[in-house]
Amino acid sequence: MALLYISLPDRAAVWQPIFDAAGVPMIIGEEAVLDPAEVTYIACWQPPVDLSIYPNLKAVICVAAGVDHMPPMPEGVVLTRTIASSIAPMVRDWVVMATLMLHRQMPAYIEQAKTGTWKSQGIQSSQSRRVGIMGMGRIGALTAQTLSSLGFDVAGWSRSGTHVDSIDVYGAEDLPAFLQRTDLLVCLLPLTKETRGILGQDAFNQLPAGAMLVHAGRGGQLDMKALKSALDSGQIHSVMMDVTNPEPLPADHWAWTDPRVIITPHVGSVTDYAEGAEHALNVIRALRSGEDIPGLVDQSRGY
Amino acid sequence: MALLYISLPDRAAVWQPIFDAAGVPMIIGEEAVLDPAEVTYIACWQPPVDLSIYPNLKAVICVAAGVDHMPPMPEGVVLTRTIASSIAPMVRDWVVMATLMLHRQMPAYIEQAKTGTWKSQGIQSSQSRRVGIMGMGRIGALTAQTLSSLGFDVAGWSRSGTHVDSIDVYGAEDLPAFLQRTDLLVCLLPLTKETRGILGQDAFNQLPAGAMLVHAGRGGQLDMKALKSALDSGQIHSVMMDVTNPEPLPADHWAWTDPRVIITPHVGSVTDYAEGAEHALNVIRALRSGEDIPGLVDQSRGY
Repeated sequence: MALLYISLPDRAAVWQPIFDAAGVPMIIGEEAVLDPAEVTYIACWQPPVDLSIYPNLKAVICVAAGVDHMPPMPEGVVLTRTIASSIAPMVRDWVVMATLMLHRQMPAYIEQAKTGTWKSQGIQSSQSRRVGIMGMGRIGALTAQTLSSLGFDVAGWSRSGTHVDSIDVYGAEDLPAFLQRTDLLVCLLPLTKETRGILGQDAFNQLPAGAMLVHAGRGGQLDMKALKSALDSGQIHSVMMDVTNPEPLPADHWAWTDPRVIITPHVGSVTDYAEGAEHALNVIRALRSGEDIPGLVDQSRGY
Repeated sequence: MALLYISLPDRAAVWQPIFDAAGVPMIIGEEAVLDPAEVTYIACWQPPVDLSIYPNLKAVICVAAGVDHMPPMPEGVVLTRTIASSIAPMVRDWVVMATLMLHRQMPAYIEQAKTGTWKSQGIQSSQSRRVGIMGMGRIGALTAQTLSSLGFDVAGWSRSGTHVDSIDVYGAEDLPAFLQRTDLLVCLLPLTKETRGILGQDAFNQLPAGAMLVHAGRGGQLDMKALKSALDSGQIHSVMMDVTNPEPLPADHWAWTDPRVIITPHVGSVTDYAEGAEHALNVIRALRSGEDIPGLVDQSRGY
């Protein structure tokens, strides 16, 4: 019984004493595995190419929240993602920043600075800006409530249509109505086969002309070519994105220097290392005791 | 008895019907004044050069919140500033945006975009960033509470040291202790003789090395030369400013293109025109009835 750890050395340095204290053996790196039968849990971002060489594997514990890159698990192996409490507020902070930056015309001011141009682009009240959030899980709900407290007119869209206090949430089939009422679209969706390419020409055309886009979901959801057309036609006014398609974005990509686009390099959140280790231990304990497994991924749903 | 209005035509178009309905005559522009003795109130941003030509003047109603540009009033003339309810949340939104932009390294990411560089600058939790707000009036207190709700470790500094719920407020004499505990300094002070030049070498040197600055007070508080030195020495890491010294900032000023500096052209807030008109009417009514005058400026204090 051991945890095979395949990830960054600086995270390993934080995990090691926590696993030592819990009495769970931790093997760092596949090259350190003496007997594959020992490995009952794997903690990783990128999993081993062949999971079938570990006959007693019970769980793959993804050290981050996104698991869209994970292969199907062998039978009897569960997949979990790390829902650290630090992630939701960090992503929320990035989205609040990005929303305010578009709302208050930062792309134009950053462009004006290049020529030393002192010119107001006008100020709109937050009450008059309708924000629509795609993806109303923990992060989406928190973000909706913070933006609402700043005065924005916020609605959400989610497959389940789950109720969120004081926020209007549209269900799956109400996507057109949701997009039509949205001046500033925020994407916080997980990447699944349903959401791949969802930010494309169809969605853009249903938004009011001159809408804004904040993308903090996954790069694979965004059709960059459709985005370029929508920016050029004025259908989309401006964009902030923390994820790109492809990712990383090549240095010569048009989006880097487009004055209507601001890019950050996938820095919405980082899992606190110690909190990630505790989460991994909780998964192991739950598997042993038969309790509910924290962060369990529904592999048919994809998150 | 009439109000002399000296300001923008589009604001006048909103004010006129409101004053008509209230039965208060409104004269638009000094050139339209037939008899100076008629003018009992003046609403303006920039006042007439010679106020003494209006023998029955009772009040100068500044259409904005800042009155540092106003001359001393003649005896018997009160000065008021417009505290529209829309101003505090608008300035708060700008400061929250600016704080998050520095906290999340936007100056570096904007610079990296020029060369298409995909590189994380790391992510720090908001809990680990100590924000210090100079000026704890209505706007400062609101801003402090919003930043605190985002997790920042917020303290305030004010002349009066007035209590603000759940925020540590340092009094006037505790400026050194306030600066020493502040990683990200926010200035929301009014411009007075005490605050002119307050953001200079002395203050910068008392901050921890690598501190950040968000300036939404008044340009005259900032020593731009001292700022340049502090940026070059690394004492100040990065700056966002909505006010500059001088203002507007000349097109060839170093700060426009410094990658550590982001400038917006004094767009922190704008007074809603209708709300400004109601405020002016309330000042006039209070003067007639002898009640407390809203927005009354203590001319010895300067705000």
